Amino acid sequence: MSAFPPESPSSARKVALPSPFRLQAGGVLRGAEVAVETYGRLAPGRDNAVLVFTGLSASAHAHSHPGDLSPGWWETMIGAGKALDTDRLFVICVNSLGSCFGSTGPGSPNPATGRAYGADFPELRVEDIARASQAAVDALGIDRLAAVVGASLGGMTVLAHAVCFPGKARSLVSISGALAPSTAAIATRSLQREILGSALRSGADTATVQQAMRWARKIGILSYVGTELLEKRFARQQSEPFAGHPSGTAFQVESWLEHVAQKFIRQFEPWAYWTISRAMDLFDFGAHGANPQGDAVVHDHTPSDVARAASYLRLERALVVGVQEDLLFPVTQQRAIASVLRAAGIDTEYVELSSPYGHDAFLTETALFTPVLGGFFAPRADSTPPRRRGDGKPLAR
Amino acid sequence: MSAFPPESPSSARKVALPSPFRLQAGGVLRGAEVAVETYGRLAPGRDNAVLVFTGLSASAHAHSHPGDLSPGWWETMIGAGKALDTDRLFVICVNSLGSCFGSTGPGSPNPATGRAYGADFPELRVEDIARASQAAVDALGIDRLAAVVGASLGGMTVLAHAVCFPGKARSLVSISGALAPSTAAIATRSLQREILGSALRSGADTATVQQAMRWARKIGILSYVGTELLEKRFARQQSEPFAGHPSGTAFQVESWLEHVAQKFIRQFEPWAYWTISRAMDLFDFGAHGANPQGDAVVHDHTPSDVARAASYLRLERALVVGVQEDLLFPVTQQRAIASVLRAAGIDTEYVELSSPYGHDAFLTETALFTPVLGGFFAPRADSTPPRRRGDGKPLAR
Repeated sequence: MSAFPPESPSSARKVALPSPFRLQAGGVLRGAEVAVETYGRLAPGRDNAVLVFTGLSASAHAHSHPGDLSPGWWETMIGAGKALDTDRLFVICVNSLGSCFGSTGPGSPNPATGRAYGADFPELRVEDIARASQAAVDALGIDRLAAVVGASLGGMTVLAHAVCFPGKARSLVSISGALAPSTAAIATRSLQREILGSALRSGADTATVQQAMRWARKIGILSYVGTELLEKRFARQQSEPFAGHPSGTAFQVESWLEHVAQKFIRQFEPWAYWTISRAMDLFDFGAHGANPQGDAVVHDHTPSDVARAASYLRLERALVVGVQEDLLFPVTQQRAIASVLRAAGIDTEYVELSSPYGHDAFLTETALFTPVLGGFFAPRADSTPPRRRGDGKPLAR
Repeated sequence: MSAFPPESPSSARKVALPSPFRLQAGGVLRGAEVAVETYGRLAPGRDNAVLVFTGLSASAHAHSHPGDLSPGWWETMIGAGKALDTDRLFVICVNSLGSCFGSTGPGSPNPATGRAYGADFPELRVEDIARASQAAVDALGIDRLAAVVGASLGGMTVLAHAVCFPGKARSLVSISGALAPSTAAIATRSLQREILGSALRSGADTATVQQAMRWARKIGILSYVGTELLEKRFARQQSEPFAGHPSGTAFQVESWLEHVAQKFIRQFEPWAYWTISRAMDLFDFGAHGANPQGDAVVHDHTPSDVARAASYLRLERALVVGVQEDLLFPVTQQRAIASVLRAAGIDTEYVELSSPYGHDAFLTETALFTPVLGGFFAPRADSTPPRRRGDGKPLAR
């Protein structure tokens, strides 16, 4: 039943998705798979599994393990004695469907042609990322997750998972997520895709595509990073004035942006970036309704109604975390998530942090996030069964 | 002495700059000129002139006049009975040197070659904009301005004018300006120049340059506009889903950005945009020191010292206005301007406004700005001479 040996303290492998794998917007993938890493041990009762959804650009490598000793993207939050304590929890991280670190995405070969999908990759939605990851959970033989956790895109994905699979997770943790993107976030991401898509669709040479990818990534970084942090780090220092750069200046903040963007284009597949970015802009938790069969489905053209969507959730507890300096997923959006969950009768903790790292705080501010997440995942002091608000509702109505 | 008939209620014309016109960074312009408009009448004592500096992209056409009935960019703030009351004030607006609305800029013919300067336009600084505008004031036979006024780049330019020409203006009004750009502002502007400069320097065809200009302008707009305003106006509405746009989406906010960017590229010369954008990033009020001859000069490589620079100012009064929602020129920068002016002994009023228009508020929020500017320019109730703090200091030290 399980594709993984649950006794393995940590492992990385591929999980084949059901084929055909139907996507929410109507597309189909055949022979698709996702890359999965796990940390810790699945308890005999299979009730200690936590599924971690990633941001736009991360891999399944959330933590180092014997097969890959490089630090994972959440190295400081996962591990023995850490916030996600692998002495007690079995942590699962899946590379998002549509990405490029082992999961099927636009850079993967299209079985119909033998060439990379590129522009032919079917339209991806956040819900598809949730479903592909749930397929990995199924393959692990886990009937119910202790929690789904995610930040940024991952914060959207936990909401998508919760509404697509009511009851499949007992709790959720949303960090710097959103019920739907803000208009400003759509504007800055759609501009990135316009720049990148213009190069990709024109069949431009590699250098031109890479240039577009660098520009898109720089726009993205400027939407993630806290402005005070830039001020403190770089001020107005210039490396070597007027070094012939196309900007006509050589401020250190430019060199840093270039360095980060160069690193990114060596790692990330351009169509994958474009595809997942679009999925983020199209996400709308409130679009989830019910069809006559009682399944939670998305109706793109019905008015968004977050309360209706939340009525399908079956969660015991939720933790929502926002960062005051986050301009891309502002705290107004975090408060909205908490309000919607509470209004649906879910026992919801809301925590607002302050960090100069802004939207990226969850990646770097270990000291801030550890007590918040650690507290949520700590063994409950009381021995009474947890309150189970919100799961008494009918799945369909 | 005057190139203008002061009796004219309003006029538009060109003023020739001294030739050669030496630029701060070492370059020289020959046969340069600036486009100037005036509104109202110069008083017999020539003491009612107010010089208005523009933002990055505006022309000298701040108000309609018989020769050009189209509304000016500050139509609602200038005029009989308005905040800048042309029944009492003689308002002068100059198209910035380096721009493209009649003043010499990169799109103007280089007398050495007969072709447009383009990349050969000498390095421009904000101080050069101040000096070229002051040359127009000199040509009008005005020895001392009642005030210099400006927002955004104009706010930087009033500070440059005040330190380059101590005593030439009795007061200043800085709206959403800066002693120096924030690192985040440098990052977002230098990225615009990188995109635009890459096309311009590669000798790309017109369509490619226009594409780069559109992208640069969109990045700029997203740094000006308030995020709440975008949310209210567009939310997540889509015009016609997936219309083949390179972004893969068709959100209304994208159509609006495209419309505004398309309009801009029909009006603004690409190298002028690049050149003035760079001048903004290189501005540093605190770099102003003194040479042995006692002239206020800029030393690029001495540490910035805003108090030293402010000690050269000879101003009676100042008004500093910030907008809380402005992310590009945040209120921390506005408070810093007010503090520096106060510490230099200048009678300084500081006003912080709240507007969803963010950095662009000065262009649209007439109701908010009228009482603030109107109050500053109102005839003083007391008949005692105005306090003249700050002008008793030696020019050089």
